[in-house]
Amino acid sequence: MLNAIHYAEKHHAPSLAELKNFLALPTISTLSEHRADVQKGAEWVAENLRAMGMEHVEIMPTGAGAGQPLVYADWLHAGDAPTILVYGHFDVQPVDPLDEWLTPPFEATIIGDTIYARGASDMKAQTLAVMKALEALLKTNSLRVNVKIIVEGEEEIGSPHFAEFLRAHTEKLKCDVALNADSQMATRDLPSIVYGLRGLCYFELWVYGPAQDLHSGSFGGVIHNPAQALAELIAGMHDADGRVTLPNFYDDARVLSDEERAALARLPITDEAWARAAGVSELWGEKNFSVVERTGARPTLEVNGLLAGFTGEGSKTVLPAKAMAKISMRLVPNQRPENIKRQLEEYLRAHAPNTINWEVKQLAAGEPVLLNKTSRFTRAATDALQATFGVAPVFQLLGWSVPVTNSLNDELGVDVVVMGFGLPDDGTHGPNEHFYLPNFYRGIESYARFFENVEQVKS
Amino acid sequence: MLNAIHYAEKHHAPSLAELKNFLALPTISTLSEHRADVQKGAEWVAENLRAMGMEHVEIMPTGAGAGQPLVYADWLHAGDAPTILVYGHFDVQPVDPLDEWLTPPFEATIIGDTIYARGASDMKAQTLAVMKALEALLKTNSLRVNVKIIVEGEEEIGSPHFAEFLRAHTEKLKCDVALNADSQMATRDLPSIVYGLRGLCYFELWVYGPAQDLHSGSFGGVIHNPAQALAELIAGMHDADGRVTLPNFYDDARVLSDEERAALARLPITDEAWARAAGVSELWGEKNFSVVERTGARPTLEVNGLLAGFTGEGSKTVLPAKAMAKISMRLVPNQRPENIKRQLEEYLRAHAPNTINWEVKQLAAGEPVLLNKTSRFTRAATDALQATFGVAPVFQLLGWSVPVTNSLNDELGVDVVVMGFGLPDDGTHGPNEHFYLPNFYRGIESYARFFENVEQVKS
Repeated sequence: MLNAIHYAEKHHAPSLAELKNFLALPTISTLSEHRADVQKGAEWVAENLRAMGMEHVEIMPTGAGAGQPLVYADWLHAGDAPTILVYGHFDVQPVDPLDEWLTPPFEATIIGDTIYARGASDMKAQTLAVMKALEALLKTNSLRVNVKIIVEGEEEIGSPHFAEFLRAHTEKLKCDVALNADSQMATRDLPSIVYGLRGLCYFELWVYGPAQDLHSGSFGGVIHNPAQALAELIAGMHDADGRVTLPNFYDDARVLSDEERAALARLPITDEAWARAAGVSELWGEKNFSVVERTGARPTLEVNGLLAGFTGEGSKTVLPAKAMAKISMRLVPNQRPENIKRQLEEYLRAHAPNTINWEVKQLAAGEPVLLNKTSRFTRAATDALQATFGVAPVFQLLGWSVPVTNSLNDELGVDVVVMGFGLPDDGTHGPNEHFYLPNFYRGIESYARFFENVEQVKS
Repeated sequence: MLNAIHYAEKHHAPSLAELKNFLALPTISTLSEHRADVQKGAEWVAENLRAMGMEHVEIMPTGAGAGQPLVYADWLHAGDAPTILVYGHFDVQPVDPLDEWLTPPFEATIIGDTIYARGASDMKAQTLAVMKALEALLKTNSLRVNVKIIVEGEEEIGSPHFAEFLRAHTEKLKCDVALNADSQMATRDLPSIVYGLRGLCYFELWVYGPAQDLHSGSFGGVIHNPAQALAELIAGMHDADGRVTLPNFYDDARVLSDEERAALARLPITDEAWARAAGVSELWGEKNFSVVERTGARPTLEVNGLLAGFTGEGSKTVLPAKAMAKISMRLVPNQRPENIKRQLEEYLRAHAPNTINWEVKQLAAGEPVLLNKTSRFTRAATDALQATFGVAPVFQLLGWSVPVTNSLNDELGVDVVVMGFGLPDDGTHGPNEHFYLPNFYRGIESYARFFENVEQVKS
């Protein structure tokens, strides 16, 4: 083990150089004009895995070629030691608003201890950290478990083909435990193991009014303006207590036990720190729940985008023919994505006036997940983090959605350990995304120790 | 007179060819990248006026060169006969959404009796009709009044420099009456004289939340989403009766007399026709007022644009840092534009929560106007329309805003006659704008007869 840690420490400089190269690839999976870049990302990951000694490296199509490619590799020379399936992704979110980036999103820039680039935190640094941990173990002949790794190219669009992929390759992906590296820590020096992730439903809501854009002077006052009608519908989706008003929205939401609420209350996350991270003076949200609960254990509804009428420079007096909102819901355990669309449509049927028409288009759906906090694999992760950081990790419910965690859990029937090294204020999905570099190196060390520990906990 | 009408009739083909050339110029005044095109539009108008025999043709800068140019010309050989100042504009609105145009917006396309192009109705056909009327009178030596003409290049951005221009050239523009050709008819065969136009205030409302775009999974539920907050503010701007809720918004609005309401009720404009023109199944608006009143005699508030977060293809789970709405109000006589911004800000101070910040930017302001229905010049227009169409014109309050009408009234101290030939369903400001060509020719004839009649009504 010491050899691998020593190797990793000696290779900080080349690992960082590789991270910069990885971050230079604009692997934006949601934009079709970046399809070739996503393919290049897959090739970059495959080549890196090949170079470190991983075997059966393969770029595999998804969705019968319609989806983005996925990289598979394995190393299966540890006999009857456990087999770990590692999950990461190499795709990233779009970069707009581009004019708010202080550095070019695809030229990684280091300022102090921090590296700035799209995908730095979500999740190229973490994907590469687990790869570099494998390299350290392989290059020092200290890998004592079997490893399979899949690095996906469409996590940021909701992994639409991932479950199908797992189902199609159950034998090839057979394992004892899965490690999902797409996660975060509580604070810079306090590692975390995530035992729950929220699900996601993502919609476009279109409101249609007149047959085409009209002159607001001629028709204003007699047509229900679709932009106004959309605003009215959105405004009604929360009540004065910050609760979502979709019918039956909370019915299935898992209720936290008193013990769990007490444990979450001990996390060192204050309202002040959260407001500072977001850059607001006052927080908002559902009454009677703490910040930690509202961001991890309670379902939410957010407007991700609004578009209607004229939005360019100057004053165009148009009464728009239609208006669109991107709206997504985060789900907690026991809520079912397939119910959410129905709830949204019920809300619209009840509240949309006859003066407009509406349409709901579902763009993504992912299940929430609740993981085993007490498995021997969780113990291996706990020990690895404690040894690396010198402090016991905390257990967290994370607010975001990694639908693959659920797929791994469901399709392969194994425990999933969610352990990652991002931070809540890394600016993921927004401009100036960044990653705290010391935790790139501590991440490599933690993953290496985890692989070591798993061998020892073999049942 | 007969000579001029005969000349105009014989020249339908070249007039139409000129109209197509005029419509080919993308004179979009609000977009800075079209500045050279607007200049070309001014040159086209100037050259056309010069060719027909108008004198002192001049392209004049506005706003000390910062504004869009304006074309001036005159013909002053009618001795002490009245002097008419003609107003038109050659600039047009932007063309987006471009993908909804069935024909290219700057290649005029004739289908049946209708010509399709941006600016066809608002207002190049009308500007050219009055120019061709002057040509017919000049070429047949039958012009018996003095004429000054100004053709503006920034009406579609609210004529920001027009009043200043009038003030700077009061002597040059001295006249007995002004004719504003930017107007419309009641129906295809029923001409109209407009005696009131609404004013306009145009704003951008910005709502600011977190310091930058955030991941909606990490921060959703604890930050007041600016897109949601904007929707809530917009939703509150109308009550359940369709009334605008800005404090004191209706206080100064002119109340229609019973006679006036009765006269307006006789206009052949039905709810059904209005709904059909707009392409909606059900109308909307302020309770207890007719469609004619709501579109001409009552003030309104419309959302002209919405923009927040991610609006591209696919699903980006962003919690946007800010959200913007373009919002404009149409004002009726006695409402003052300078009060409206204060009312909007008062509304926001009363209703915006502490969880967000907001900012109001004013982009345009124009006064409402109420004209003299009984002047001798109005009589001249009435007779001209009756002679051309074979039916007496109706008197209308128009919903849109032509701030220049007010400027002409105020700065030059003369009566303004508003007589034009667009139709309510011409699609002005939207895609597939069009103009009914028979009224281009009847417009030429009506304007020619008006110039003739004004000479006869000299006091």
